[in-house]
Amino acid sequence: MKMLLIISDGIGDVPCKDFGYKTPLEHGNYPALAKLAKEGITGMMDPLAPNFPAGSDTAHIAILGEDPFETYNGRGFLEALGTGLRPRAADIGFRVNFGTVENGVVVDRRAGRSPLGLATLATDICSEIVLDVPFQFREASGTRAALVLSGDNLSANVSDGDPHALGAAPHEICPLDDTPEAKFTAEQLNKFIEQARELLSDHPVNRDRQAKDLLPANFLLVRGAGQAPDVATFQERYGVSCACIASTALIQGVSLAFGFDLIDVEGATGETNTDEVAKANATVEALRDYDFVFTHFKATDTASHDGDPKKKVAMIQKLDNMVSHIMAGIDKKDVVIALTGDHTTPCDIGDHTGEPVPVIVWGKNVRADNVTSFGERSCAQGGLGRINGQDLVPILLNQTRRIKKYGA
Amino acid sequence: MKMLLIISDGIGDVPCKDFGYKTPLEHGNYPALAKLAKEGITGMMDPLAPNFPAGSDTAHIAILGEDPFETYNGRGFLEALGTGLRPRAADIGFRVNFGTVENGVVVDRRAGRSPLGLATLATDICSEIVLDVPFQFREASGTRAALVLSGDNLSANVSDGDPHALGAAPHEICPLDDTPEAKFTAEQLNKFIEQARELLSDHPVNRDRQAKDLLPANFLLVRGAGQAPDVATFQERYGVSCACIASTALIQGVSLAFGFDLIDVEGATGETNTDEVAKANATVEALRDYDFVFTHFKATDTASHDGDPKKKVAMIQKLDNMVSHIMAGIDKKDVVIALTGDHTTPCDIGDHTGEPVPVIVWGKNVRADNVTSFGERSCAQGGLGRINGQDLVPILLNQTRRIKKYGA
Repeated sequence: MKMLLIISDGIGDVPCKDFGYKTPLEHGNYPALAKLAKEGITGMMDPLAPNFPAGSDTAHIAILGEDPFETYNGRGFLEALGTGLRPRAADIGFRVNFGTVENGVVVDRRAGRSPLGLATLATDICSEIVLDVPFQFREASGTRAALVLSGDNLSANVSDGDPHALGAAPHEICPLDDTPEAKFTAEQLNKFIEQARELLSDHPVNRDRQAKDLLPANFLLVRGAGQAPDVATFQERYGVSCACIASTALIQGVSLAFGFDLIDVEGATGETNTDEVAKANATVEALRDYDFVFTHFKATDTASHDGDPKKKVAMIQKLDNMVSHIMAGIDKKDVVIALTGDHTTPCDIGDHTGEPVPVIVWGKNVRADNVTSFGERSCAQGGLGRINGQDLVPILLNQTRRIKKYGA
Repeated sequence: MKMLLIISDGIGDVPCKDFGYKTPLEHGNYPALAKLAKEGITGMMDPLAPNFPAGSDTAHIAILGEDPFETYNGRGFLEALGTGLRPRAADIGFRVNFGTVENGVVVDRRAGRSPLGLATLATDICSEIVLDVPFQFREASGTRAALVLSGDNLSANVSDGDPHALGAAPHEICPLDDTPEAKFTAEQLNKFIEQARELLSDHPVNRDRQAKDLLPANFLLVRGAGQAPDVATFQERYGVSCACIASTALIQGVSLAFGFDLIDVEGATGETNTDEVAKANATVEALRDYDFVFTHFKATDTASHDGDPKKKVAMIQKLDNMVSHIMAGIDKKDVVIALTGDHTTPCDIGDHTGEPVPVIVWGKNVRADNVTSFGERSCAQGGLGRINGQDLVPILLNQTRRIKKYGA
């Protein structure tokens, strides 16, 4: 039997005044999700701990079965992995934005959001910058990029260069402890940023951007230093093959850290225009080849961060359509499905909060309960009760009879 | 937004034959509690762990967010704090009763419950007893008192002097381990008790008591050695200001250990005659000045220990009246409330048991459930599910958006 984990990012919400104090999940009509809830067993899940707001990275680490409070070492490494860089375990990864600095202050943290020429800039950065340690640098979606510093004498305990505000000067990177490693890492980063500044200031790509009335990408805003999470792969831990369908670098990075193969889907964008039917088809396909498939759906979180509950309902309808196509394609006797979110992102707050998320476990052997819809309050009446994020993969492993009994 | 925690001591109960197998919470009519349940989200809470009976001290430590199995170091220190003594972290606190000993055996563990002259005795004890370490001693409510021994070479691992039985001789204090600290502490305590015995035996206060047909307070029954709990203050841990409204020395002591300011309320007695409206008014007032207010209601536990379910119903009605006055006084948009008990105290047992207690979380953003009354069985159907005592403060912090997310 195969296992399918579907995570809809930030799907949880709180009562919304515009919807008569229903949540987006409670307000809309989602026939495929309702059918899954009706036929499955439901409950509420605390990704990290009761009422503890989770990042997407820490929540996914927990839902994939490891304790993030023990294993999480920052976001940069995971972003670098997802961007396509291949850091070794001891390396340090960083998130980077191409930004625009004028007269010493940040005027745009994303260089007007235009990616024009950034691949060329990244290539030149890789060939021309010289540090005392090897590094990798690569452009990512939009104006994002990732950086990896390699070596055994580095530390992730350094501050951000990104001031996270307009009109402020970029920060010098500082060590956050007294170790020689943190000091050395900060020095190397400051060197990197300064050499990049010189390289970018009069680069032909930026002359071309300015000729086209685009902001120059003349500064690298570095943040989120991180090391590899201390997690085991699914192969090592459970002996199963696994694949991930996700369009967000961070989620791809987390999945790579857990040993997942990444499956590329044309039309899957990680944005609200994503092709959910293509994702469904790829999911059905992947279930033929892998024991465990994880399909991530990002757009619900995007709508939540935008503070737009109507858009969130539209995105849940896309999710519903994706689930409908998956259910039409799979052999129902042979698949166990878990469907949930990684955290609650209330539209009226626009950021992650700590309320639990609803969860469905569906499959031929589950103890189906009386819940008939996928919602924050309906699933609170469900047969699973209130579970922790780290419980979910073991539930799938148990439903597919892959966990050996402990004792005799 | 402000946070209000209301704990009704020992409010949980079990089905009661006299009430047609309803509990005191299920039997009575409590409109303010019912309204809170109807508008809020409810659940069941295990103060320590599922079905593990909690003391009031350990339960409050857990509900205030720390693990009592890791941090609790005995009751005496907390009682001493609540009595008004100011021990340093390394000091040892003890609970003390003024008792009556005749012919070498205890004839009354509370000297007939008359406090007449005990303040004078306490003053003389402080000025006349000489030990090898500094000490503090103070009378408390009724015939209770508290003792603190100061110094760095002391241990709380010593036995009780109180034999906890009538007709028995007071016990010599013994070290409970082989350390020099435990031995030294036991020696100092035995010295203290012996010098007090000599001082009290023919003290004018006791001659006066006997002339008035009261039992002499001629012996100090010492018990419950304790050290400071290993907890962080709310200021350190959460960065919030906090105040406590409680009339019980133990609860005041726990609150002081967590950095709460104590608010004195005239008419609040910690007994069944407490002025619940005065407590409500003080609570409303405190919410103007503090981020977090904790209001404790003791009388429900007193009725339970007395084994009197009708009195318990009357005390829950007082609690209901207190809540009604609080709700009339606060700005409902700006306060999140948690209402619960610290443990179950069934009237037909008269002591703490391990069943979970019902809990309500009320506030403008909660996912209100279908529960419409505050009871042990109604709240078991609630949307919070079954939570742990240590989850409760994080729930309030999350509802007031004070917890930073872990991860990104």
